[in-house]
Order: sequence, then C-alpha cells, then structure tokens
Amino acid sequence: MITDINIALKETIRDIPDFPKEGILFKDITPIFQKPLLCNKIIERIASDIKNWNVEVIAGIESRGFLMGVSLAMELDLPFVLIRKKGKLPYNTVSHKYELEYGSAEIEMHTDSFKPGQRVLIHDDLLATGGSASAAAELIQKQGGEVAGFSFLIELAFLNGSERLTPYSENISTLVAY
Amino acid sequence: MITDINIALKETIRDIPDFPKEGILFKDITPIFQKPLLCNKIIERIASDIKNWNVEVIAGIESRGFLMGVSLAMELDLPFVLIRKKGKLPYNTVSHKYELEYGSAEIEMHTDSFKPGQRVLIHDDLLATGGSASAAAELIQKQGGEVAGFSFLIELAFLNGSERLTPYSENISTLVAY
Repeated sequence: MITDINIALKETIRDIPDFPKEGILFKDITPIFQKPLLCNKIIERIASDIKNWNVEVIAGIESRGFLMGVSLAMELDLPFVLIRKKGKLPYNTVSHKYELEYGSAEIEMHTDSFKPGQRVLIHDDLLATGGSASAAAELIQKQGGEVAGFSFLIELAFLNGSERLTPYSENISTLVAY
Repeated sequence: MITDINIALKETIRDIPDFPKEGILFKDITPIFQKPLLCNKIIERIASDIKNWNVEVIAGIESRGFLMGVSLAMELDLPFVLIRKKGKLPYNTVSHKYELEYGSAEIEMHTDSFKPGQRVLIHDDLLATGGSASAAAELIQKQGGEVAGFSFLIELAFLNGSERLTPYSENISTLVAY
C-alpha cells in the first residue's frame, strides 16, 4: 500500500553511496528530522499500526532507535526503555551477545526495564538483515518480557530481515521499504 | 527555585556509585523514561524556559541528547539536527576536535544541518565540565550558526561547567542541579 507517508519518506531519505564501506548504499534518515510535521505523521502512523498489539513498553535500540522511540512512547503514554551497546548502561543489566558478519556484538538493558510478562515493542530506524532486531527480541525474552512486535522506519526488503523475525511476522510495522 | 519538576526529577534520577569508573557518582536518567507524564512535563518546561530565545533549530548531542531532543523539536515545530561522534554521520560533515581529561574527542554534524545565521539550541542530558557542550557550540559556529542557548536535564554544579559556557550564560536551561 502506497500512502502519503511512503512518498514523503522516499522524497526525504537520502541515499549515500559507499557508506560506511564501499558497495553499501546507506539510507540517511537525518533529513526526516528537519521536518517536524513529517515526524508527527510518522509517530501517528506507527501508533496506528501497533494499536491492537497490546504494547505496554517501547524499547529503542541505540542510538537511532532513540530518535523516534521516546516520542512514540510519549504519544502512547507508555514507558520507554533503552537497549544499548555493552558497558553503556550504569545499573544492573541483562545482556545478549550475537554474531555479526565479522565478529560479534553485545547489547544490554537494565534489569528493571519492565515487569515479567509485559509486552514490549522493539523500535529501530532500520530493518536490514534483522541481526540486531532478533538479538533485541532475545534480550527481552531473557528478561521475561513478551515481544509485542517491531517498528522500523525503513525496511531493506532485499536483505530478508523479516524472515529472521518469523515468530512475530504479523506484528512488524515498517513505513517505507526498498 | 524549587518546582514540582525538580522534586519529581530528584526522586526519579538514580545515583550509581563508581560508574563508569571508581570515584564517580553517575546520575542515571533512564528511570525518567519510565514515566511518560514526567517526560511531557520536562518538554513543557524546557519549551517554556527557552521561549524567548528565538530558537530556530534544536541540536541534540549523541546519544542521550537524542532522547528528549526530538520530542522537544516536535513540540516546538522545529527541525532537529544530530551531533554525533566522528564517523557516524553519512553525508558531508563539519567536525570539531576537543581535548578531554585524557586524550581528545571529535564531534560532527552534517553541513546542511541549518542555514547560516540560524539560531541553534544545544540539548544534552547532562552539563558536567562543559567540555562537550562548548565543543558543540564551536561546531555550530564553525558552520555559521548562532548559539541560541543550551538545554540540559541535569547540571553537576560543583563541576562549574556553566563557566565554560560564559558567552551564553543567560541562556542555559537546567531542570535539576546537584
């Protein structure tokens, strides 16, 4: 379904060739934040997409997931929790290590981020291979939470990241796909 | 002036001893984001503090400055621009290197973040020694912007960071000081 917001986002997101390394066409979302009205429409749209998912907590993945995540949580009157790279969060944490194409990464959240059984929406700017999104889902489950779904601004559909999120494939909100 | 928001913030911000290293008492702001109503009050309060500063652009410093920065920009119907560590922004950038207690750091923003002469508010979670805030101010001036002022959630007043921001000392909004 093509909507006004698809068009506005495609006109706004900027292609950057060879970033962060040669051969990668990077989708630069920073121009979105030049347009507060578009930001408002994005928040409204995500809120509408997820309205039947019984979301109780919004979790944003560092650091671009922080940009819209807090506004989304405020719009929905829900708590926002931070998923950060290892070593950044000061209080007691639960962590999850996962494999990357080269090497590995580790993410953390505070142990008091939510109560067991609460339904958590994972928000990030981009769904690429799904590595960090599925790692975030495992992190939430490790801590006794239920994954209510995912919200991304952009999906790079040719990378098939949504396949790595199969148990939740009914509950993925993306605003624009390439 | 003690206000309701001072009290609510002092009750919510958590002290973490010896983080990130021994001898430092870290102020953990993550519990603020558990309270969407408090987040709304924070945004209202910052908006009120800065209302006569003719702010045209909000700049948030990575990554905790992203948390409230976007909501603040949306509330004020202003563009939000990202100040990030070197190498993170994909488009053409202007950068500024500054000295830390040990070593140095470098921050960047996109060259099309604002037009010359626009008035930019710098937002971050914490004013400590003022190193990154004054570096952000220099970055904005390098690019032809005017610094309209600063917004912090917390000031560690015993570190005298506001002295490093002297040319702008009339235009510093902080919600809680220690």
